[in-house]
Amino acid sequence: MAHDTVHIPMRLDTKAILLRQNLFSKASETLLESFSQAAQVKTLKKGETLFLQDDDADAFYIVLSGWVKLFRETLDGHEAVIDMVTSGHIFAETAILEDGAHSFGASAIDDVRVLRLPNAILKKAITDDNGMALSMLTSLSRHRKRQTREIESLTLQNASQRIGCFLLRLCHQDDIGPIELKLPYDKSLIAARLGMKSETFSRALNKLRDETGITVKGATVIIPTLETMSHFACSACSNEFPCDDMH
Amino acid sequence: MAHDTVHIPMRLDTKAILLRQNLFSKASETLLESFSQAAQVKTLKKGETLFLQDDDADAFYIVLSGWVKLFRETLDGHEAVIDMVTSGHIFAETAILEDGAHSFGASAIDDVRVLRLPNAILKKAITDDNGMALSMLTSLSRHRKRQTREIESLTLQNASQRIGCFLLRLCHQDDIGPIELKLPYDKSLIAARLGMKSETFSRALNKLRDETGITVKGATVIIPTLETMSHFACSACSNEFPCDDMH
Repeated sequence: MAHDTVHIPMRLDTKAILLRQNLFSKASETLLESFSQAAQVKTLKKGETLFLQDDDADAFYIVLSGWVKLFRETLDGHEAVIDMVTSGHIFAETAILEDGAHSFGASAIDDVRVLRLPNAILKKAITDDNGMALSMLTSLSRHRKRQTREIESLTLQNASQRIGCFLLRLCHQDDIGPIELKLPYDKSLIAARLGMKSETFSRALNKLRDETGITVKGATVIIPTLETMSHFACSACSNEFPCDDMH
Repeated sequence: MAHDTVHIPMRLDTKAILLRQNLFSKASETLLESFSQAAQVKTLKKGETLFLQDDDADAFYIVLSGWVKLFRETLDGHEAVIDMVTSGHIFAETAILEDGAHSFGASAIDDVRVLRLPNAILKKAITDDNGMALSMLTSLSRHRKRQTREIESLTLQNASQRIGCFLLRLCHQDDIGPIELKLPYDKSLIAARLGMKSETFSRALNKLRDETGITVKGATVIIPTLETMSHFACSACSNEFPCDDMH
């Protein structure tokens, strides 16, 4: 185990953290107890790698703080950012259903703390307890629905609409304009997350500004009204704002 | 029940069809028997709709012959083709994990026969039998992996590489060139399946011809060597040819 993996301090309530996950909301006391005893907190500095694609998958993670980038690398050395996850998000829990290797890599884009939970316990739970297998099915199905939406968005929304969609996902549905947002991470990472080159992102952001009247200053974005933005971004999507997979 | 739904003729071996699906390869005799008694063959003419997005999902399907288009409709009336399925493919089996409604529509793009199987039986099976729940998990995980690859492809491959990837998926990995292929359906549908406008598709196909020396005549494509094609198409992807999710 690396030196930056430490057993969790008593004040971190692993059971409460697990119960907040849909996957574990109906978990047995015994299962929660097993996880609590095995859980470890791992800290990563900005840029550090948690695991690489094809590494043995012996654990899954819940983000405690910071942002983690999930990515795949192409044969010619480019990177596809497949997701960005932050506080409260679970990831890599589906590796137990694959061949025991991670199908993507994970690295910290700022200082990060994650809760590390052994896959062996999860695997035994879904085999021994059909309730847990059904929870895992529901959770996977939710992932799938989100991915289907993402494929739809990559297929039908233009670059400006994709940025608009990204910004809407940072809003709360009952916000009334004008809304001031902080971008959660660098614009270059947002571009990568949305599958755009930096130049495309800049052009598309300018177009979005013209179409919806947003102002962008550094990491601060002001959206005059949610209605104008959702009218622009959601017209090329099959979901109406607010999306059912938003939060 | 519509007039074009008929109980299956005795000669159609539903059990054998089910056992060829990964999802049912370990199914109990009792389950196979329940499905056999409830299975119906449904025939659709070219263009006919099997179900629409948001329809109640009371059944899932296995294609017996023909091609079925799975699609989502955007608010402004455009269509995202999320998959094309043919003989031997199962679809809509994950609706039991969602809210009981279809998250996409399905329609026939030529004359189609599908085996219609009640969701209620599948739902009971995964609730009562942990083995079936685990098979369903494996099956969903495979879908997920395929979708992750698709997101990667939409993000990182250019239009010509995506067409190349589509063609490679019609080849067998031990084919040696030159390989003659028949396109499985209309070019306009291939374009839609790959998330391209028709004009983009034409331009990208021309570029692919220049880069790899393929010839295209109507629905016939000749690929001189698999190596040139996979070198061109797979460089912007994290999978080497042949992909592990090919067939």
